Formats: sequence, C-alpha cells, structure tokens
Amino acid sequence: MKATFMYGAGDVRVETVPDPVIQQPTDAIVRTVLACVCGSDLHPYHSLPASGQGLSMGHELIGIVEEIGSAVTNVAKGDFVIVPFAFQDNTCVFCREGFQTSCVHGGWYGTPAAAGLQAELARIPQANGSLVVIPGGLAGVDESLLASLLTLSDVYLTGYHAAHMGKVQAGKTVTVIGDGAVGLSAVLASKQLGAERIILMGRHEVRTNLGVEFGATDVVAERGAEGIARVMELTGGEGSHIVIEAVGHLPAYEQAYGIVRPGGVISRVGVPQYEDAPIGFGSLFGKNATLTGGPAPVRAYLDAALPQVLAGTINPGKVFDRSVRLDDVASGYQAMNDRTALKVLVTP
Amino acid sequence: MKATFMYGAGDVRVETVPDPVIQQPTDAIVRTVLACVCGSDLHPYHSLPASGQGLSMGHELIGIVEEIGSAVTNVAKGDFVIVPFAFQDNTCVFCREGFQTSCVHGGWYGTPAAAGLQAELARIPQANGSLVVIPGGLAGVDESLLASLLTLSDVYLTGYHAAHMGKVQAGKTVTVIGDGAVGLSAVLASKQLGAERIILMGRHEVRTNLGVEFGATDVVAERGAEGIARVMELTGGEGSHIVIEAVGHLPAYEQAYGIVRPGGVISRVGVPQYEDAPIGFGSLFGKNATLTGGPAPVRAYLDAALPQVLAGTINPGKVFDRSVRLDDVASGYQAMNDRTALKVLVTP
Repeated sequence: MKATFMYGAGDVRVETVPDPVIQQPTDAIVRTVLACVCGSDLHPYHSLPASGQGLSMGHELIGIVEEIGSAVTNVAKGDFVIVPFAFQDNTCVFCREGFQTSCVHGGWYGTPAAAGLQAELARIPQANGSLVVIPGGLAGVDESLLASLLTLSDVYLTGYHAAHMGKVQAGKTVTVIGDGAVGLSAVLASKQLGAERIILMGRHEVRTNLGVEFGATDVVAERGAEGIARVMELTGGEGSHIVIEAVGHLPAYEQAYGIVRPGGVISRVGVPQYEDAPIGFGSLFGKNATLTGGPAPVRAYLDAALPQVLAGTINPGKVFDRSVRLDDVASGYQAMNDRTALKVLVTP
Repeated sequence: MKATFMYGAGDVRVETVPDPVIQQPTDAIVRTVLACVCGSDLHPYHSLPASGQGLSMGHELIGIVEEIGSAVTNVAKGDFVIVPFAFQDNTCVFCREGFQTSCVHGGWYGTPAAAGLQAELARIPQANGSLVVIPGGLAGVDESLLASLLTLSDVYLTGYHAAHMGKVQAGKTVTVIGDGAVGLSAVLASKQLGAERIILMGRHEVRTNLGVEFGATDVVAERGAEGIARVMELTGGEGSHIVIEAVGHLPAYEQAYGIVRPGGVISRVGVPQYEDAPIGFGSLFGKNATLTGGPAPVRAYLDAALPQVLAGTINPGKVFDRSVRLDDVASGYQAMNDRTALKVLVTP
C-alpha cells in the first residue's frame, strides 16, 4: 500500500510499504475513505531534523473495516467507521473518567505502536474502543457529509474539548485565539454550548469569515499587546471568561493570560511547542486564572456529535477547503504551510 | 501606636508610628485583638534586600471597630470583626463572581493603599465589604475560639480556597503538598468537602500529626522523585485527583504535576516564588491536567465558615502553636523561620 512519511522539515514522501496485518486479537484493519492533514503535522514540517528514517504521518481517518482480530466484537467487516486520533480500550479507569487520551492501553498513530493514517490501509489497535460505526454504512451516508464525519476523528472534537474543558456555557464570553481549523472548530463548539459572545482572534479574512459563519460575534485581527487591548476593550475592561488557545506557540499563550478574566479559564488544545511558560503571580496566579486542556479525548464526545453531523445540525467539515490524492499529499502539506489552504482532505 | 516593619531579610522591627485615621468615607479603624505571622511573610524574611525604608507587615486580624467613615453602614463602633487579608468592596463584578481578591476597588495590606496589620490599630479601606461582624461581640465569644476566628482572616480559608478551586468532593483523593499552616488548613477543608482520601506530604512529625487530626489518611515524608513514587504507589499508579500545592516553591509544583492524575487538578495557594515553570506536553498538557488557584477570596467563604467555627464544628486555630506580644513579633518570625513554631499569634 501507499503511505506518507516525513524525512525532515518540508520533506513529505509517499512510499509503497507492505500492507498492515492483524498483530493482536484486538486489532482491526481499515481501508481509507478519507484522511487529512492536521495543523499539528505542520510542527514537524517546520522543524523535524532531516533523517534517513521517515516519520509515519497522519492520525485522522474514516474508512471501511477490512478485517478484524478475534477479540474485536464492536465492529464487523464492511462497517463504515470513524477512527479517533488516539487509540484506546475505552474501558480503563481513565477512559471511564472521560480522558481516553490517557488510556492505559492507548497510544498514538505514527509511532512504533501504530503506523500513521495518511495511507491506504491502517492497522487500528484496540479496535473495540477505538472505532465508532457510522450507521447506514458508506452507501447510506450522503457524500456531502463525509468531510464533517472526518472532523469527528480530531479537529471538530478537539475544538469541542477546548470548549468543554473551559466550561463554556450560556452567558459566557469566549475568546478563541487562532483561526486555524481547530480554532474555528472551537468557535462552532462554543456556539453549540451556548456561549453568548465569541471573539475570534485571527487575521486571515477567509478563515475569520468562516468563524463568523460558525458563530463568532467579533473578530480581532490585532495580536500581542494590541490584541490584548482590543479584547479588553470589547469586554468592558473585564476580560474573557474563557480563552481557548488553539495555536500552541508561546505568544498565543501570552495573549491568553493577558485577556483572561479574574477567575476565568484558559483552555489549550494547540499542542504546546514550549515546555516552560509564565504561571506565577503576574500571569495566572494573581487573578485566579485556571489553565486547562490537553490532547482531546475525542472518543468521549463522539457518540453525541455523530448524530448532530448526520442530521446536518452542525457542518464542521467546512474547515476543509482543498482535497488532494494520497500520491500528492506533499502538496497538501505545502498548501497548509503556505496558508493557501486551511485544511486539506486526502483521498486514497 | 506600635506597628511592624521589615527592613530586609531577617530584620523585623516594631516601631511607634502615628495612629491611623479615617482617610475615606469608606474607611474604618479597627483595634487589634489578635494578629499573626503568615507563611507568606517568610518569603521577604528570606529575601528582602536591606533598605532604609521599612516594609509595613501583616495582613491577618480580628479586632474591635473603633471608628467608621461616613459611608460605612455594615459595621458599627464596638463591633468585633474579622478582617479578610485583602480588602474589597464586595459588590463589584469580580466580587459578585466570588473573586474578591480581584476587586476593582480592592487591594492589599502592607502597601501604599493600606498599612500592614501587625499593629495596634489598622485602617481598613472599603470597610463595608471588608469587615465581617462576629455575632455576640468579643464578650460573647469564648476565648478558646479566638485563634480559630483569626484563621478566617486568611489561613483556613486559603486552605479552603485551594480545596474549593480543586473541586474536592466525596470519592476523590486529594494530595496536599506542604505541612505548613496553609497545607494543614487545606487538609481540614478537604475533609469538610468530603474527600475520601487525603495524602499529606510533609516531614515535620508534629505538623503531620495535626494533619492526621485534621483528616489526613496518609502521610508521605519523601520529597522529589521519591515522594512522587510513593504517592503513585498509594494511588495504585493512577495519581491523585486533586493536588493542593501549599508551598509556593518550584520543587513543590514539580511534585504536583508528577502526581496529578490524568484529567486531575493542581490547585495552588502557596504564593509562587517563580514566574516560569513547566506547563507543556510533559507536565500538564499531555495528561489534561488542570492548574488553578490564586490569592484566596476569603470574603467569599467567610459567611459559611464563621458559624462552623462558632459552633466548634471545625477548629482550624490549632495551627497556632505559639503566641508573642507585638513588641516581640521579631521572635515570632524567627521561630517560624526556624520551624520551631508552625504559626505564631500576635497580641497587642
């Protein structure tokens, strides 16, 4: 089969590799219907040191079950399924508490435990806990819904996780930092959770326009001190109840603690590209700000979101604005890197 | 009147200064019945650069109202009152949200806005919002309750804030880092809030014994990697739902993220003696840990805690193990610094 590898910053290649096989009784093999490129894939695209050993890429997928191991009971051959971006048994103590990304039997794609999902076929460990069946099968789902179904693998539910962890609810002001696909998803999720006011910080008009369509009530193009001043002005000097940081770079976090209201919450879902950052009296502590977030346990939210997508209540797939063939996936990375595409679908 | 000043690390002096006077119609003057030395006073006691200008010290007080400004209506001359460690109007938007330490008209004692409270008399700004009357007056309260009433000015309710922000509740495991007076108060508050298991990390046996009396179910004397390993062992490898960091130094925070459970909460009330610290994938983000806490809005919790103290339901005043006269307050600092005293009462 064909699969995607990254050999260093900017160096994405599609190669032919052996088809995956069932390794454990809990595995399943899934044939790709749609995959995509994630904003987090751009971090190694910027900084991965060149190596003769390619990094197996991709973690978002919808597809058809081709084969199941002997212990797999929740899905059957031929099922049309969503693959959450991390695998999990969905039964361990942390899964039961709603933090499936910390599953004691879980892990990540693109690692020795499981190859990446920008490929024609994928081996899914812990298939019982990791695959969610789309009712009706591929033939029963309108093609226009496929992109939105794919967002339940990661991007929309990562935005949802940010809003959920931030305790977005009616009457609250939410500020979303970042107009990438996760930020826009967080806008849509915040709207779903009843936020009264949603301020979107971003400067790419095509993207912020989609943010407005998703529910943003205000757009702030300024960054840094100017952006902070503008949000403080919009909130009557009080700051934002919830700030969703959907970028992952330090300046975005610095903006976040600049605009969070006393007693408010900063919810991060952009994978931090830093380890140390300010959390003392002058940033978080002095105003009793709470910092939360992490890798989204999308499995926890999937059962509730799937009917919303199938009913057309939400259409998070609008974040996709380009589609490439797997053979041409490198051009998808390039387009997202150049910001000529917001998020790129990959077809096998 | 006599008042306490710090002129540099280890240099605490009691001096005679003019009695405070009403400056604003919202002020009150309170005569000290009991004050005390705070663990946070030890931070400048360790590190304050020597200066010819003394720092006005103290922020915990119960006393008798001597005089009120023309706008003060909630208290009267002769009332026996508790003084929360920060002043606030208790009516602004942040006060109404329960974060009185961020009051738009609030501030701190020992600053240009208001002198410190280790003194014979104190000027209390925003008296309507900052003074809480003890029913029955000084004559109506058993003397054995005075120390516990004083803890409602700061230490017990700072511990309570930590537990409240950490969402301590029945069925949860709480680990408290630090066996100082705030840490022990957090143990007592966690017990009040129904925590199932309370692990106290501390190595001073007299203190941890009081922690056990307050409700600690386990004591861990080890620190650093050994302490982390011990708590992980006690929690079956899962970690603690809530970690209360009641120290304020970086190693205590590092211990906190080492033992917090995936999806758990670190609640800080030790004033951070650092600004930057790890919050990336390897510390907080990877396991969806939440970081919360800050200066306790004790005013928010006072009305509920006061009857508990008057009824003897809780006896947080047990954290005081020494009493000094104001003239001799320097010896109280010394004793707390040497750890021969846990927390020191100051009588005028």
